[in-house]
Amino acid sequence: MEIIKKTSDSRTVMNEMVLPNDTNTLNNLMGGRMLHWMDIVAAIAAQKHSGKTVVTASVDSVSFGKCIKLGDVVTLQAEISRSFNTSMEVHITVWAENIPSGEKFKSNEAYYTFVALDRNGSPVTVPGLKPETEEEVKRFDGALRRRQLRLILAGKMKPDEATELKALFTQD
Amino acid sequence: MEIIKKTSDSRTVMNEMVLPNDTNTLNNLMGGRMLHWMDIVAAIAAQKHSGKTVVTASVDSVSFGKCIKLGDVVTLQAEISRSFNTSMEVHITVWAENIPSGEKFKSNEAYYTFVALDRNGSPVTVPGLKPETEEEVKRFDGALRRRQLRLILAGKMKPDEATELKALFTQD
Amino acid sequence: MEIIKKTSDSRTVMNEMVLPNDTNTLNNLMGGRMLHWMDIVAAIAAQKHSGKTVVTASVDSVSFGKCIKLGDVVTLQAEISRSFNTSMEVHITVWAENIPSGEKFKSNEAYYTFVALDRNGSPVTVPGLKPETEEEVKRFDGALRRRQLRLILAGKMKPDEATELKALFTQD
Amino acid sequence: MEIIKKTSDSRTVMNEMVLPNDTNTLNNLMGGRMLHWMDIVAAIAAQKHSGKTVVTASVDSVSFGKCIKLGDVVTLQAEISRSFNTSMEVHITVWAENIPSGEKFKSNEAYYTFVALDRNGSPVTVPGLKPETEEEVKRFDGALRRRQLRLILAGKMKPDEATELKALFTQD
Amino acid sequence: MEIIKKTSDSRTVMNEMVLPNDTNTLNNLMGGRMLHWMDIVAAIAAQKHSGKTVVTASVDSVSFGKCIKLGDVVTLQAEISRSFNTSMEVHITVWAENIPSGEKFKSNEAYYTFVALDRNGSPVTVPGLKPETEEEVKRFDGALRRRQLRLILAGKMKPDEATELKALFTQD
Amino acid sequence: MEIIKKTSDSRTVMNEMVLPNDTNTLNNLMGGRMLHWMDIVAAIAAQKHSGKTVVTASVDSVSFGKCIKLGDVVTLQAEISRSFNTSMEVHITVWAENIPSGEKFKSNEAYYTFVALDRNGSPVTVPGLKPETEEEVKRFDGALRRRQLRLILAGKMKPDEATELKALFTQD
Repeated sequence: MEIIKKTSDSRTVMNEMVLPNDTNTLNNLMGGRMLHWMDIVAAIAAQKHSGKTVVTASVDSVSFGKCIKLGDVVTLQAEISRSFNTSMEVHITVWAENIPSGEKFKSNEAYYTFVALDRNGSPVTVPGLKPETEEEVKRFDGALRRRQLRLILAGKMKPDEATELKALFTQD
Repeated sequence: MEIIKKTSDSRTVMNEMVLPNDTNTLNNLMGGRMLHWMDIVAAIAAQKHSGKTVVTASVDSVSFGKCIKLGDVVTLQAEISRSFNTSMEVHITVWAENIPSGEKFKSNEAYYTFVALDRNGSPVTVPGLKPETEEEVKRFDGALRRRQLRLILAGKMKPDEATELKALFTQD
Repeated sequence: MEIIKKTSDSRTVMNEMVLPNDTNTLNNLMGGRMLHWMDIVAAIAAQKHSGKTVVTASVDSVSFGKCIKLGDVVTLQAEISRSFNTSMEVHITVWAENIPSGEKFKSNEAYYTFVALDRNGSPVTVPGLKPETEEEVKRFDGALRRRQLRLILAGKMKPDEATELKALFTQD
Repeated sequence: MEIIKKTSDSRTVMNEMVLPNDTNTLNNLMGGRMLHWMDIVAAIAAQKHSGKTVVTASVDSVSFGKCIKLGDVVTLQAEISRSFNTSMEVHITVWAENIPSGEKFKSNEAYYTFVALDRNGSPVTVPGLKPETEEEVKRFDGALRRRQLRLILAGKMKPDEATELKALFTQD
Repeated sequence: MEIIKKTSDSRTVMNEMVLPNDTNTLNNLMGGRMLHWMDIVAAIAAQKHSGKTVVTASVDSVSFGKCIKLGDVVTLQAEISRSFNTSMEVHITVWAENIPSGEKFKSNEAYYTFVALDRNGSPVTVPGLKPETEEEVKRFDGALRRRQLRLILAGKMKPDEATELKALFTQD
Repeated sequence: MEIIKKTSDSRTVMNEMVLPNDTNTLNNLMGGRMLHWMDIVAAIAAQKHSGKTVVTASVDSVSFGKCIKLGDVVTLQAEISRSFNTSMEVHITVWAENIPSGEKFKSNEAYYTFVALDRNGSPVTVPGLKPETEEEVKRFDGALRRRQLRLILAGKMKPDEATELKALFTQD
């Protein structure tokens, strides 16, 4: 019988302070450090869902908006948005806060995909996911479309086979 | 008069050895560290093209294939694939090599986008790019399509306005 | 009029994965790294409460129990337990989890104290705290006793002046 | 026959320069980094005394006074103050020095406790300690009192059983 | 039959950005960080030549000229200059570039020597080297003289036995 | 009137534990990390002698003998061996110790040279040095010879002008 977990079972929060070595000469957080933090928080969420060691399989397109500055606090939240056979899509939201000025804003959203591995490094089946809130259901449904886009971009699927993805071009 | 640079003017190579802190408990390089290295090599390439300090604006979808192990040498090469008004698309290729076993493979390809900033942190115009080889021209042309996909994924363009991107669904 | 904040306003959660450089030759997390993480999560909580830059004034006695291993996930939660004029006592709880084995245990509890500073580095008044749950009230009340112990141990108060602390020797 | 070592056999000195990543946005050394350095120098002292791998069992209350700045040199000295069956109390003194300004001050004193482990991670007996100077004897005697305080604070001893600790409230 | 490799087979390029933790309080790159980077790029070159794990056996005299600043890009290039029985001399050239100001200069040249090891940590024979360009031949020939100087400085050869080195005092 | 300091005024000791990220895949300490540690301890010694910020001007030839392993304790001691107008030669001795096995050995000796800088980054005069012990006098006298060798190796002196260095070839 398949094990089914809830989205909240894998929810993981991480706070980081932006230190000097995380910044460029304008005192802005470097994008690569952010991508690294996202990977860690998402890997912990994928471990919680699967109960296994995991490796990053892909990261979807991420855009960076307003600059995050030295001394800001970055809050990252990750949770599984859908599981496939041996892989899991993880949704990550990132906020930045400059506490002395009271300014806080949503900085990024991203999807990372992980594969669960056994002790020999071979992929293993992961539990299913039962989304509960309306937003969780929406992300769960959108996962098929994002997966087709990933396969096309990695050259593993032809665009005209991507039946789900075509929805991207006809609705929001 | 606009300044025009060549692709090779920004070409940047970086070699890294995979050290213990870069790996998970299976001794595989963590994806987040790789994304961080990609960001650094791409930022140097964007600096060389623009002659300015740069910040990461976005990273396109990246997929990770075969695991890279502790002690492997990772070689990253980055060069500008197209410049827009104040932003630059950078193409990155990554190889991994286990020297004692003689095994070497291409690990990843990715596109990062950077914005050039002046001393006050405001965006500034960057030089144009003149691609020379056949492959450089192909990447230069594909940049419009990738840009439309980025805008759609960031919610800044409606799919039916993405005239270039539709090519993705009708040709390779 | 004095500003009053709730305990939950400063609650901060941080997750860390134990990486090779955090461990000794038996693959156990080193105590010093844990104390460093505790300081960061507690500093963020004190920043949230005060809206200011903060510096560590003291750490109370911390005991380490069961060893935490390489690859484990460490979860730290911090919140203000009482504020004084320009200082704040922060309560920190730490759990460790080995996800593949399903083992999870409470590892530590600790109190750190921080002073809030203005831009010139001078101490500034911080908001008051209104504890709400029974446990929050208990920690709030115990803070006077812990403060007397800190002052005695730092040689800034004579033991026979510590009226609150004597309670430690007559009740739990 | 029990092995007896002298305090000076374990004396260990460590110098560190305060680098940018060790500091907060006011350029002050963060307390957590200091606690981490203290743990390393004390662990080396405990290794020298026991000839074994050691793990941190506890840290006693530490207070931080004057701020230490970016570029300052921090000097830490550690030595065993008393050994018990399988554990050792280590006394640490910390000085900070701003060399260009000629300012030098004693920053902290602290006690860490370590347990010695064999190759399987089980506690092993450690050598006894013979204090020699007047100060060493004083620390050796005070160790019983500090140990009772640790046990009470960790909830492992009732205050009215702490016969040694009561001395703290009747003499300095 | 002995394997012979070319100088270009081991050529390795590394780019690093000078980050805050690499600098002193005057924002200059610290010499020790540079020596560390040189060791990494040279070790990769020695691995490429030998196909083995390598350990540093020595570094020759290195002088540092003009200061390299925070935010500069450092480019290091390494290649084998001569191989002996189980050891390899590696030649390293370092350039520094401040991209926004357009200033670029050659910063250092150095020679590191590495020994190749098998899986048990015992030295193993390495391929021979066939220098091709005029400069490569010149470095190849000078290697004997540098080796004698190393042996004298390490106290393993008497100066009057250093027949090659005497050339240093009679010609440039 | 010239200020004269003693060798012992600048003596600086540093202990480091070899952590996973300091080692290669055979668990040996990498030479570059050692060179980095030497630079830090020597820079502190040069700061103590000069009372100024210092930058590394050169490192003399260093040879590495027996491998130092993960978990070993490395002890570095540095002191000024001679001062010139605005520069100082620092002598460094390094020992490695594997505490559980009781093995301890002298690993390296090296000379680094530093220049003292004022707040604007210009070289400033440093105090003179008065060596006291026989060994200190011997190092003081040898400094002229080492300096000539550095100048020749950096291409700033012709070998036949190096009157002091010729002694190297006629006596030990």
